Amino acid sequence: MALRAAGRQSLVDTVVEQLRAQVAAGEWPVGERIPTEHALAEQLQVGRNTVREAVRVLVHAGMLRSRQGEGTFVVSTSDPAEIMRGVQRAGVRDVLELRIALEAEAARLAAVRHEPADLERMRAALDAQAELEDDHGQPDAGSVELYAHHDIEFHKAVVEAAHNTALTATYTWFSSSVREALLTALDDREMPRIIHGDHHAVMEAIASGDPEAAVRATRALLERPKQAVEALLADRRP
Amino acid sequence: MALRAAGRQSLVDTVVEQLRAQVAAGEWPVGERIPTEHALAEQLQVGRNTVREAVRVLVHAGMLRSRQGEGTFVVSTSDPAEIMRGVQRAGVRDVLELRIALEAEAARLAAVRHEPADLERMRAALDAQAELEDDHGQPDAGSVELYAHHDIEFHKAVVEAAHNTALTATYTWFSSSVREALLTALDDREMPRIIHGDHHAVMEAIASGDPEAAVRATRALLERPKQAVEALLADRRP
Repeated sequence: MALRAAGRQSLVDTVVEQLRAQVAAGEWPVGERIPTEHALAEQLQVGRNTVREAVRVLVHAGMLRSRQGEGTFVVSTSDPAEIMRGVQRAGVRDVLELRIALEAEAARLAAVRHEPADLERMRAALDAQAELEDDHGQPDAGSVELYAHHDIEFHKAVVEAAHNTALTATYTWFSSSVREALLTALDDREMPRIIHGDHHAVMEAIASGDPEAAVRATRALLERPKQAVEALLADRRP
Repeated sequence: MALRAAGRQSLVDTVVEQLRAQVAAGEWPVGERIPTEHALAEQLQVGRNTVREAVRVLVHAGMLRSRQGEGTFVVSTSDPAEIMRGVQRAGVRDVLELRIALEAEAARLAAVRHEPADLERMRAALDAQAELEDDHGQPDAGSVELYAHHDIEFHKAVVEAAHNTALTATYTWFSSSVREALLTALDDREMPRIIHGDHHAVMEAIASGDPEAAVRATRALLERPKQAVEALLADRRP
């Protein structure tokens, strides 16, 4: 029973990969209907239930859309999960550069679009960090995770102050999975040093309504961790 | 039979949404094992096959990972497809601002990392466009689609000249589904005017190795369509 289930599972996965490749290759253009379950089952020499499960996977992945009584249509030739896996597999340098791209532009827009509540959120995150810092501006060993949490909150507040749903949606993903990848690549002990930088300068540039100053401060803040991470990872290479 | 299939489909979809919400809410942290199929089936009051199908959807979505004989683990608390749907639902202004964020940073990096082949690709795209232009620098009615294709090729060449896999992966998505949404939001007739701009200036700034000039030229190129799209959409409001 377990074996049969495993065999069935990999068969569905195989059909998912075949259909994904066909959609990605543009075999059916965006907006067009794909063949019926029956036709796909014949073409791929598998059962209709297997095709149905595979189609469901690609519907949830955002490549296909099913319309009741009309069939299944191509929505996108690229699979967001595949793209995100590509980003996750990228090196730390590449991921930080992508983060700089998103955050510098967000800071620029935030300088002209921020509302008082946005600045409140930034200030609250920095105040909470300050309470965890010792005389050298470092959090003690027990509060590293909480310190990192407030760091994430600050950067999310900056991005959300741009009031751009596309930027916010894309950045949200970085705050979870990419950051996880980054954290596991490094000792927790090293993180405070990496995330420490002049956050106040970013907040003040945004508050002053100066887009160019906001970009400069954000880049200055993020170039440091980029260099620090590169140095740390270089140290560890055998 | 059709009704039963439809009912089964929506039950799996319901379980997918329930599990997605639980993972997104952090009920099981990243890296942790989720309950067994048996336990989830009991908890959600559905069959094990339904749970298995729903888990498969979230594995392909990039939220869960199954390890043979060990169980299923949380990989990410956010679903890339959900994030991409958020970007697709965003307004045209927001999407163009996200594009500016990615392309301006790519141009900056391209200025210092480009290889001769990258410039060749940019030049080939611009030469192909020039062949389609009439005396007013506009493509004739029959070649609008081909003209837009060369435009996409030029911008992809700029992004790929940054030699950053994370930027390229993210931008790839824009070249397909987001652009489709943008094109259908506008008359094709209006597009040449929108996509026309000083592409040569971008290429020359990258070729000269000047990061700041590359950023300025890219921003100048993309601010124009942003303003044009905003004006067009404003015209159409009732």
